[in-house]
Amino acid sequence: MKIFYSDTHLGHAPEFEVFDGGVRVPNFEVPERATRILAALKQTDWADVHAPADFGLDPIRAVHEKGYLNFLASAWTEWLAARPESDSAADKSALLPATFPPAGWRHRPEGLLGRAGYYMMDLSAPIVAGTYKAALASANCALSAAEAVSKGERAAFALCRPPGHHAGKANCGGYCYLNNAAIAANWLSSKGRVAVLDIDYHAGNGTQDIFYERADVLSISIHADPDFEYPHFSGYADERGAGAGLGFHHNFPLPAGTGDAAYFATLEIALGHIREFEPGYLVVSAGMDIYADDPLGKIKVTTKGIGEIGKRIASPGLPTTIIFEGGYNNDALARNVLALLEAFK
Amino acid sequence: MKIFYSDTHLGHAPEFEVFDGGVRVPNFEVPERATRILAALKQTDWADVHAPADFGLDPIRAVHEKGYLNFLASAWTEWLAARPESDSAADKSALLPATFPPAGWRHRPEGLLGRAGYYMMDLSAPIVAGTYKAALASANCALSAAEAVSKGERAAFALCRPPGHHAGKANCGGYCYLNNAAIAANWLSSKGRVAVLDIDYHAGNGTQDIFYERADVLSISIHADPDFEYPHFSGYADERGAGAGLGFHHNFPLPAGTGDAAYFATLEIALGHIREFEPGYLVVSAGMDIYADDPLGKIKVTTKGIGEIGKRIASPGLPTTIIFEGGYNNDALARNVLALLEAFK
Repeated sequence: MKIFYSDTHLGHAPEFEVFDGGVRVPNFEVPERATRILAALKQTDWADVHAPADFGLDPIRAVHEKGYLNFLASAWTEWLAARPESDSAADKSALLPATFPPAGWRHRPEGLLGRAGYYMMDLSAPIVAGTYKAALASANCALSAAEAVSKGERAAFALCRPPGHHAGKANCGGYCYLNNAAIAANWLSSKGRVAVLDIDYHAGNGTQDIFYERADVLSISIHADPDFEYPHFSGYADERGAGAGLGFHHNFPLPAGTGDAAYFATLEIALGHIREFEPGYLVVSAGMDIYADDPLGKIKVTTKGIGEIGKRIASPGLPTTIIFEGGYNNDALARNVLALLEAFK
Repeated sequence: MKIFYSDTHLGHAPEFEVFDGGVRVPNFEVPERATRILAALKQTDWADVHAPADFGLDPIRAVHEKGYLNFLASAWTEWLAARPESDSAADKSALLPATFPPAGWRHRPEGLLGRAGYYMMDLSAPIVAGTYKAALASANCALSAAEAVSKGERAAFALCRPPGHHAGKANCGGYCYLNNAAIAANWLSSKGRVAVLDIDYHAGNGTQDIFYERADVLSISIHADPDFEYPHFSGYADERGAGAGLGFHHNFPLPAGTGDAAYFATLEIALGHIREFEPGYLVVSAGMDIYADDPLGKIKVTTKGIGEIGKRIASPGLPTTIIFEGGYNNDALARNVLALLEAFK
């Protein structure tokens, strides 16, 4: 199986994030997540690791708003330039906003901190020196995997870091900056109907935002109920798409503690929607934080269960682009990713 | 001059806030702010300090949305109940959200953390055990001052803490939970036309939000340009009111470094609008963070300048309710408040 990976992600390693309660903790989305999976893949006899091609900005601009992309491109430099001399470098190690537009407000400020609050929806996607380049390389991994699949591969895996599925048309959040899966799915949509299946523990709110009014891309997310879990503001069952896209989005919020059997039952409903849609391509947002021992998750799927999820997703036989998303148990990540990919070898 | 003050604010003392860059710092809005002003007032021969009357919830419900008030009332108890046993008490010393609805999103979640992100617009208004009671007492100080003025006093001073002018119809933020000035102004508006003049260093975005579509209350804010300063999402010169309220709101954003003379010139324009409006009552949101040595401010008004501002605001001779807002140089606060109040003795 073709695997796409770029070392550029190493330049994106924010030191911290801020939890509910204003608690600053070491950032969970660390480079080790990708490098350990890479090392495990290299030990197999079937993983064929490639550097991504550079697809340029056009396929990214097709998904994200111009103002947001401009912000991502210049934010770090602006943050450095705005650093008052009295502040210590430690206090400015990452750009995170402290002020956000109240719900419904639409004024888009021009100043850096206003734009930061406008485009950054939470405290878990800090911007550091290497963020933008890492996000571009990550999107190129996704596009390269999509291209391989469009050229006839049964499946390809984009070992993306940073992940992407929380990035909406005009926001980063939840460790995500560019929506790798949505960028790949949109690129594929010129070649055929595309279904996106998001099995990350957290709702794929960015992907939902991007495809919400489109009928040519079916988007489905299975995740922890946003009533108690991030991202709180979307991922509810009654969000089914809008306009032309009405009926082409499905959310499956799950309760805390969901185990293998209940997960499989929900997955079958999702796969039913996908079969009915008759897509030419499938894109999978493959988060591993549904794993029972994930430090950020409350769903209890086993490694064996993840293997079974892989088999079931593979069963319709669709050309499949698999995009790495979340998963924060670094000791189990490689094992779980391999369990999923086994079904697509 | 009648002064209204309640010790209840002492129960609201969040230990920290979070600055841009995700930096956790000791909270600037401390009880000492009010107690030092109180002590200085008690040294004068003209300050007549009273406890506030209890006006009940009706005048507050007339300004803030029901869902927001319910959230404020129950948030702390819910936060305690939601505290996972594995987290340390230190990590849960205050409720602050980490996830916010992207601009334009209107979904109002039911879970605690979703509601927190929906109703709390920034990281400087943490909710602690005594917050709601302190905010109610603060609003009652404002209402008591308004009542004194409505009964014939030339002026009254509400020594409010927490402050209020950043609290909108349905959000807290910027150390503010209930909009004391707006609650007082709305209460007075049943007795005559009311003008609100906000001289706090930061834009009075909450007051703007509350009166934006009303023609019977003129609202004016003079403040640091939100392009570089909190609250970033409103306070721009082109925001002039909407619907029936179009033309009845004015923002005067000032550049960093603005000194006495330039401030007076802007104030005269604001006072011109007030004279033209011919209000029966004036409510002043009196923030002292325009002071040259304020740790959070970049405007350079002197103590003498604040005295002159008081004289100019007093010059139209309107019955005036003065509401304490921001100001964080605790050594200078009492001196500056007294300088302002002198003109209204």
